[in-house]
Amino acid sequence: MQLYRNSNVCTRSCRKQQVVRSPLKISCALTQGRVYNFSAGPAILPEDVLEQAQRDMLNWQGSGMSIMEMSHRGKEFDGIAKKAEADLRTLLNIPANYKVLFLQGGASTQFAALPLNLASQEDVTDYVVTGAWSKKAYEEAQKYSKANLSAKGDNKSIPSPSTWKISKDAKYVHYCDNETIGGVEFKSVPDVGDRVLISDMSSNFISKPVDVSKYGIIYAGAQKNVGPAGVTIAIVREDLIGHARPETPTMLDFKIHAENDSMYNTPPCWAMYICGLVFEKLIKQGGLEVQHKLNEKKAKILYDTIANSNGFYSNPVEPASRSLMNVPFTIPSNPDMEKTFIKETEKLGMLQLKGHRSVGGMRASIYNAMPIEGVQALADFMKDFHSKNA
Amino acid sequence: MQLYRNSNVCTRSCRKQQVVRSPLKISCALTQGRVYNFSAGPAILPEDVLEQAQRDMLNWQGSGMSIMEMSHRGKEFDGIAKKAEADLRTLLNIPANYKVLFLQGGASTQFAALPLNLASQEDVTDYVVTGAWSKKAYEEAQKYSKANLSAKGDNKSIPSPSTWKISKDAKYVHYCDNETIGGVEFKSVPDVGDRVLISDMSSNFISKPVDVSKYGIIYAGAQKNVGPAGVTIAIVREDLIGHARPETPTMLDFKIHAENDSMYNTPPCWAMYICGLVFEKLIKQGGLEVQHKLNEKKAKILYDTIANSNGFYSNPVEPASRSLMNVPFTIPSNPDMEKTFIKETEKLGMLQLKGHRSVGGMRASIYNAMPIEGVQALADFMKDFHSKNA
Repeated sequence: MQLYRNSNVCTRSCRKQQVVRSPLKISCALTQGRVYNFSAGPAILPEDVLEQAQRDMLNWQGSGMSIMEMSHRGKEFDGIAKKAEADLRTLLNIPANYKVLFLQGGASTQFAALPLNLASQEDVTDYVVTGAWSKKAYEEAQKYSKANLSAKGDNKSIPSPSTWKISKDAKYVHYCDNETIGGVEFKSVPDVGDRVLISDMSSNFISKPVDVSKYGIIYAGAQKNVGPAGVTIAIVREDLIGHARPETPTMLDFKIHAENDSMYNTPPCWAMYICGLVFEKLIKQGGLEVQHKLNEKKAKILYDTIANSNGFYSNPVEPASRSLMNVPFTIPSNPDMEKTFIKETEKLGMLQLKGHRSVGGMRASIYNAMPIEGVQALADFMKDFHSKNA
Repeated sequence: MQLYRNSNVCTRSCRKQQVVRSPLKISCALTQGRVYNFSAGPAILPEDVLEQAQRDMLNWQGSGMSIMEMSHRGKEFDGIAKKAEADLRTLLNIPANYKVLFLQGGASTQFAALPLNLASQEDVTDYVVTGAWSKKAYEEAQKYSKANLSAKGDNKSIPSPSTWKISKDAKYVHYCDNETIGGVEFKSVPDVGDRVLISDMSSNFISKPVDVSKYGIIYAGAQKNVGPAGVTIAIVREDLIGHARPETPTMLDFKIHAENDSMYNTPPCWAMYICGLVFEKLIKQGGLEVQHKLNEKKAKILYDTIANSNGFYSNPVEPASRSLMNVPFTIPSNPDMEKTFIKETEKLGMLQLKGHRSVGGMRASIYNAMPIEGVQALADFMKDFHSKNA
């Protein structure tokens, strides 16, 4: 079974097949002419989740309505929202003293909401910058607080938390757990003593177990590991709610959303529904321990392929900080060859491998929903390409 | 063909049928066991739009990806976003000096964004309050400006613009074109001289032609007439962009979104896609003049039924201000009977007719996508219920 784009012949049965259509063996784990989509976000979603959404599109479970047509205050959607929250609580083992908020506006909106909810203009806030996203968060916080740059990474490694300059009176310490562009990820929870720790987990949320109790706030845009773009999940410790400054826009005030179960106004119902299906699936598959192990296995395939290429491929990140989600790599000896690499992978149905415009090269985003077969297909291609072009 | 919920027997062929299953003749224009959904929002969507989204769910036009999985910066979604904007420009005949922004956070987020983008804390802003939503906008503006209450309606009528107290130096005049809860709608563009006119059109956007050039800004949450919850459309005259105060959250600054074609961060791609399908359909059907005539016809059926009920049903709004979108009504002689009314309509597959909790009674929201057959079915039931209970 081929992986060529626009193929109409691919069916469920292909799961058990390996067919040679190019000089390279490609195993296909997807159906309906679908591709291995390595996009950094919005990103690949589980095929069975999409199939369920497809089945229920015009008439959700006999309600006579699409999810998109239901009142958010009706019993049907209320059940969907409650189950999504409960399943997320199960997955992450979220303690009872944390609220789960389903918000809009992406992590970028939270960059402003955090200092507005937790600090005054004169308060110090601490920021650790390890890439493009934590830098954006730091810059926005400067508008609303005395934002202090506690540590700065070099896109290759994460500065050891023991070296961070934590301010004595910082209202919180903010960092980004996985930098999507640089492919730099934290492997443990940084120790910041009794400070309130806040993490942007947009690109590795629910990819691994997390001890939520060590955080004040965890937040994440959904469009990487969780669901479609348009919903942002914030897990907020209750004592941090209710302190927004008077000038905070109502819609950026955690208290408003907490008091109204994320339904102060109409929430992004469809996006929440898809997230709920993903949560349910992850629980059925054994939870985040299982998913984490699979993600480690998937990432190892690519990092090993790079390491065993005698320098043909290069990943700039030091091993201890390498992301399990986003694997950037280049062909340092011949950057022009990268275009050929991308063109050839596209022909084989491996899409969106072009690196971020600020970094160049390639980037394979291998979130939860990317099947290991897709990662293996890419690794196989990398070896094949290397042997032909070394 | 019945309209009972959970029916599995309803098929396309039912379009031509009228079958008696209750003492009442009900004509069915929907398929797949779908119901006439009178929700105020999220609300009914065109069946063929849902069918197209269903077909393309796992593999959009041979791309191998779902819309939800595509990079917002890829050529596929870029085309979808550009077409959606172009079609909206066609529908509303939007002049070239207006930007179309696809935002998140609902109209409620714009309540703060408007004064933050257009006024200083010391500037006067004028607000006309004709219901719950314009009141919320006015309250939020008080945090960011000297918000002046120019006029106040009584939920029954719209105060004549000639009586509005427009401030000499108001930065803008804000009103809500259709109040979803009260069912109060403007029938023409209020004349505010050379002031910047801003309208929240969340619940009647693209239900009728609008002379955009008379406005500074028109904005609307999508989840009534346009698409699913999670996208807010703002049409902003270019000279009003670029004046946000320094303390404006980046994500609330019109300039950021205008300069980045609504892709400063990841936009709500799926919601934009559905909106695009709806725009395309409306153009094919002849545009907003045609839709407006249909909406007038639909609303007339209900208002006539109320008027001809000898006071059995009552709508509190004066005829000149009655909404074509939301028709609230009560049974004043016996409010207890309203529960029976709602229960019986539910049995017949006419859902979400309960009035807003602040108003009580019933409310039929009959947006663009509600077929005239659905309105007629409700009117038929109303007459039947009246004759049995008078």
